[in-house]
Parts: sequence; structure tokens; C-alpha cells
Amino acid sequence: MKAQIISIGDEILIGQIVNSNASYIAERLNEISIDIIKMSVVADDVERIKTELADAFKNVDLVLMTGGLGPTHDDVTRNAIVEYYKSELVFNAKVFEKVTEFLKNRNIIVDEIHKTQALVPKIAEVLPNSSGTAPGMWIEENGKILIVMPGVPSEMKSIMNDSVCTRLRTHENLGKKTTVRKTLLTTGMPESELFMKLGNLNDLLEGAQLAFLPNQFGVRMRITASAESKEVANDLLLSVEQKIRSKVGKYIYGSDNTKLEEVVARLLFERNLTLSTAESCTGGLIASRLTDIPGSSSFFERGIVSYSNGSKVELLNVSEEVLQTYGAVSKEVAEQMAVGLRQSCGTDLALAVTGIMGPGGASINKPVGLVYIALATENECKVQEFRFGEDRLTNKDKTSQKALDILRRYLHGIDE
Amino acid sequence: MKAQIISIGDEILIGQIVNSNASYIAERLNEISIDIIKMSVVADDVERIKTELADAFKNVDLVLMTGGLGPTHDDVTRNAIVEYYKSELVFNAKVFEKVTEFLKNRNIIVDEIHKTQALVPKIAEVLPNSSGTAPGMWIEENGKILIVMPGVPSEMKSIMNDSVCTRLRTHENLGKKTTVRKTLLTTGMPESELFMKLGNLNDLLEGAQLAFLPNQFGVRMRITASAESKEVANDLLLSVEQKIRSKVGKYIYGSDNTKLEEVVARLLFERNLTLSTAESCTGGLIASRLTDIPGSSSFFERGIVSYSNGSKVELLNVSEEVLQTYGAVSKEVAEQMAVGLRQSCGTDLALAVTGIMGPGGASINKPVGLVYIALATENECKVQEFRFGEDRLTNKDKTSQKALDILRRYLHGIDE
Repeated sequence: MKAQIISIGDEILIGQIVNSNASYIAERLNEISIDIIKMSVVADDVERIKTELADAFKNVDLVLMTGGLGPTHDDVTRNAIVEYYKSELVFNAKVFEKVTEFLKNRNIIVDEIHKTQALVPKIAEVLPNSSGTAPGMWIEENGKILIVMPGVPSEMKSIMNDSVCTRLRTHENLGKKTTVRKTLLTTGMPESELFMKLGNLNDLLEGAQLAFLPNQFGVRMRITASAESKEVANDLLLSVEQKIRSKVGKYIYGSDNTKLEEVVARLLFERNLTLSTAESCTGGLIASRLTDIPGSSSFFERGIVSYSNGSKVELLNVSEEVLQTYGAVSKEVAEQMAVGLRQSCGTDLALAVTGIMGPGGASINKPVGLVYIALATENECKVQEFRFGEDRLTNKDKTSQKALDILRRYLHGIDE
Repeated sequence: MKAQIISIGDEILIGQIVNSNASYIAERLNEISIDIIKMSVVADDVERIKTELADAFKNVDLVLMTGGLGPTHDDVTRNAIVEYYKSELVFNAKVFEKVTEFLKNRNIIVDEIHKTQALVPKIAEVLPNSSGTAPGMWIEENGKILIVMPGVPSEMKSIMNDSVCTRLRTHENLGKKTTVRKTLLTTGMPESELFMKLGNLNDLLEGAQLAFLPNQFGVRMRITASAESKEVANDLLLSVEQKIRSKVGKYIYGSDNTKLEEVVARLLFERNLTLSTAESCTGGLIASRLTDIPGSSSFFERGIVSYSNGSKVELLNVSEEVLQTYGAVSKEVAEQMAVGLRQSCGTDLALAVTGIMGPGGASINKPVGLVYIALATENECKVQEFRFGEDRLTNKDKTSQKALDILRRYLHGIDE
């Protein structure tokens, strides 16, 4: 079954809000192998909504629409639907009862304006909304299904979860083909090099699909496999995943929505190791990412944001001579930061970063983007040099990601 | 001038990523009074891209397209454009030179695959991409403009800012009515209370529009004013802004894309004051936000992420007795953290936070969301208690925002 998502709302078209509803609906429909071939956003305007709906039904059998169901003058989705289906609005006493109950529970006085919420196109079946006053609607005509939901995310989600997903899953028109997906998360290797390391994609994919999605944290590789049964699709996916892992496995830190800091946290938990961080250029970002993980206090002992040279000397025991000779952004200072921190707080591991994030701070030999990352362990301290880009915030993200990946590789025993 | 935004990408259609590019572009086009009448998302598929483009140009004179310009097999936007315009791909030596330079600066070996990035449709004019390898394109034919940009947000933004906005602003087809917008950024006051403090909106707005946009950092209030000339529109905007400021001015920390940390940084620069931070529950987020600001080393001396009790005692001179009596999340510990830090590093100001971010760590008297924030100055140390929500990451954001706002209010001399 092919579907289109239509979002109604001026607030999206002027860039005031991001259309996160469409992503949520797409993700849920994907789970039941419904193929979204298009998403669109149009204004709160009866003619535009009607045109978009007519165009959509030329290509798909299912349209999910959100927005424009509120009680005020600028909400016209109901009117557009009535015109499109040549139906009429009728007062639904049962809906009004629910609206009244919902408002009373929230100490809101029921007013004339709330009666609008109980007006439903005659052709529509009501989908109850447990999180708000505007009911959802299900309209089925000539084998084409239209589902209409409010634009408030929590209300749309309630209706999706309470009725839409279940009804669609068991709908007779739903195709028998199953699609499964998995996204492998990599870092430390550019898209083009990953692509080359994978070799001949046709051989590797056996009919599955692979997409490369890069951002400042790395490249995500999304595998999509379709088959007549979920079992066959899963087998294909697993086979492709294994082949990819055999070629570029050491760059893969997780899958789907996993964050690198979660992986590092889990490894530290499992191995019962403690960690401290000394950050200059990232200014606390690495510590903040690690402490995003619930329970991080069991491995994260402390973090030092040693922004001034004085703080490097006082808190990390960096020597003033080394600072003067090599400069704060140097292999030598990174090493002293990590070793000094580890000694002073007694953690198993200490991670240190120093670098130039830009726009200022560069010199002839030390450009913006130069970074040193040191990891001190019981036996040694290894320092690596990196060259990132020009943008300060991207550099902070990249440095924190690289530092966490160095930890991950150390904990996994992966060599360069 | 009417426009449509077309985003290309399977990753959006399956709900893997939210289409934030479309919002960014819409926001920027709005500033120059270009009316977005539709946004759409289609798959990485030559036929679908061509069809969408043809449909779009039936209704608009300007199409902005993003995505599908990468070097791998699943990127087909270039091919779709060549087919649509019956043009051909030609190797652009100048683009290749830039790609080579970009890669060399990042120690990436230039390979055969990178040559793809230098293939440009003959009909297109190149828009340089300072943040990546895929160039943007500008195609103008029969009075219709197509602008194509990569899907990586930082690269799309570079091209928008470096060339697209300026070229569109001065384009002969642009209409004469001017719309101006300004968003006032508030924190520390819920939407409903701000709304009530503003009183009668019709009197206040004189025909301008006002939208309330809440998130975990505060409520943004966007003013929109339209008129025949930019001058008249600006006068109306300014008049509305002044009236809003007279009523809720102390909650407004900036406008448009200003970040609270920028405001705090500017105030510290101007007053020549230095700052240090001691963070428990926010885990370095406050330090990281402050060090996002270029030049922050001139006021930010150090940050301590005192996650363990031991680090609070050793680095901040918190007394073990106070820790035992009141617990790490208490008014008393927050105060000792700020005072101890300020004394040990000699900064003018020291900010300290301790709290329970969840999901674990709560007790009967200390629920998830309980936070203490202390600000130590030369003369005193003030501690405030807050109760935020249940979600760990939202709590970290809210705590960091509140702590920075406490600094802002202190520096501005604003009472509660």
C-alpha cells in the first residue's frame, strides 16, 4: 500500500515549526510496511487542501492528513473535506460529550466555540482523541482511505497509537510484502572511503538497498530489505549486515538510534572502569554527552574544563615550561593533561583534549581545526593529532565524537 | 514571488530524519517576503523528482531543492535535473579544484569518486559550497528559477547565506510588498502568563501579528509586520516591540537567533568580569554552552564537573559533613560549591548547580527535577531552588538555561 502524508499549516510553511509530525507518522507506517511515496505541506486554505488531496489520490490509496482541526477561524481542514467529498458537517453528540468531559477535567469552562469540535463530516467515522478535543476521522470511499488527525503532536500520536496503526495493520488492502530496515552508525571514515571499502555493491546487497547518510558525527549506512515474509526479509538484512561488518566493522559503533556515548557508557559499566575528562577546546561537551546517559555517575568521576593555562597547571599538573615551549595546543600538553588528571583523581582512564576551534586562535603552524586527543590508561598515554574544519560548533562536535570513539576503540581493543 | 521547497530523500520519507532543512529555507525566504505555498518531500528517484519539479513549476516561479547531490549511487538529483532540462553533465575543473582543496585540508585522499562532485549540468550556474564538496546550482529558464543545494544542513546553510539569499533579495521578479519579522526571546515565564501580561492584543498589535513559540528554553514571541515600504513595516514592528518590552521586558534576553550564552558572554566582556562554573547535574553543559561563544577564553577561566562527592570535596572544598547532613542535592552544597570554586580560582563570579535529572536518584523529599543554582559574587552567594520535569535531557537544558539567565539578570541588575 502506498501512502502520502499531507500536513496543513501556515506555521510550517513560514518555517516557524519543523514538521516533526510527518516523520513520526512515516516511522510508524514503516513498521507496518506501508510505503510513503510523498510528504507535502500546504496552507490552511480550503482550495489548496482540496487540490492536494485530489492530486495525492491519483498516486496513492492512503492519505494521512494532520492539522487545521482546531476551533478558531484559521482552521479550515474540516470544511475542505466536506467540500471534497460533497458531504456535510453534522453535530456529533457523543463527540461533544467527550469534549465536555475533557475540558471539565482540566477546569476549562465549556463554551460555544467548543461545539465546533463536535462537528464532523457526515461521511467520516470518528477516531477518538484521548489527548485533546479535536477527534480524528477515517473516511473510506472507492478503496481510498483518508485519515485526518489534529496537528498537535501529542494528539496526533494518541490517535495513531489508539486506533490508526491497528486498523491499518489489519486492513484488507495492505500488501503482503514486508520491509525491514537497519541503520549502521559509523564514525571516523568519510562516505567516499566507506563506499570504496565495501567494493561491488550489487554483490554485497543481493537485492537489498543501502543508503549513505553523512553528518558531522559520522556516516550512517541504512540497509533496507523487502520480501514476501518478515523472516525472509530479516535473513536478507542480516546477511547484508554481516558482509558490511566484515569489511568496515571497526568503524561501526552501533545501530539505529544508538548514541556513541551510550556505547562507551555501556562498555565502561561492563568492564567496571571509571573515567575522568580534561577538556580545553570542547569546553565540557564530552562530559555533558557522557552525563546525558542515565546512571553515568557510576563511571564518570569528574570533568575538568581547563580553559585557562592557569587551570591546566593547577588542576592537571601541566608544567609551565611545557606550556611555554610547545603551547597549550600541543601533543605534549594533551599528554600531561591526561596523565596529570588520571594521577590526581585515581580513575582507571583519563581523556584529554586541546585544540583550536576557531574562528580565532590560529597561528602559522597551528591552523583552526587542529586538535590533540590523549587517552591515559594504567600502562600508557597515547596522543593523536587531528585536523577538523573551520566551523567552531562543528569542530566541537567532531572533536567530542572522535574522543569518544578513541575510548570506544580502546575498550574494544581495536587498533588503528 | 511564490515558491515551493522540494526535499529529496528516502531518509525523510521513512521518518528517519525530520525535515529541518525545509524550515530553515522557509524562514530565510520569509525574511525577503517570498511566499512559500508548498513544501514536498520525494524519494531519491529520477522520475519522481522530475514529476515533482514539473508540477511545482505549474504553480510557482521559484523552486528550492535539497538533497541527493552526494557522490554515491543513491544520489540521483543531478541526473533528474539533466533529464528535466534536457541538458548534460559536464566536468567543471574549477569545482574540482575546490573539491581537491577542501579534501586536502582535511587529509582526505582525492579519488576517482570525488570527480562526481565536479559534474555539473551544463545549464546550471555553480553556487560555491564553503562547507563541503557538492556545489549548489542556480538554473534560470523562461522566468522560472531552480536552486539546488546539498541535503547536509551545514552545507545547505552555507550556500543559502553565501549566495542564494543575496541573489534572491535583489532579483527583478521579487514583489514590492515588504514583510519584516522579529522574534523576541524570553525565558522564565510560561506562555499563558506572558499572554496575560500583554493585555489586549488588538490594541497592542495595530495590524501586526504575534505568534507564541514555546520550547524547553523559553517562549519565543514572533512579531510580523507588512507594509508597502520597508520603512513603514519597520516602524510598525518597532512600535509593537516597544510596547511588548514595556510589559514583559525583563523576561526578554535577546531577539531572533541570539543565544542566551551569547548575551551572557557579551555582558561579561563589557564588564570585564571572569567566570568559573561548578556543575554536578548538568555535567558540563553550562561550560559547553559558554565556550560555544568565540573568544570565551577571555572571561571563562575554568569549569569543574564535580560528578562524584569526592570531587566536590577535593576540588570545591565542600565539607564532608555538609554533604552527609544535607545530601549532594541541597541548598547548602550548592552554596559551598560556588563559594569554594570562586575562592580557589579567583574569578569574579562562580556559578554552581546541583540537582536530580532523572530517571533515577530521587527520594521522598527530593523528586526528579529538583535543582539548586548558586551564584557567588564578591559580596554574597545567592541560592535558588527549582522544580523542573521528568525528562533527563530536558532537565539538563532547562537547568543550564535557568543558570545562564540567573547570570544575565545579575549582570543587568534585574530583581526577581
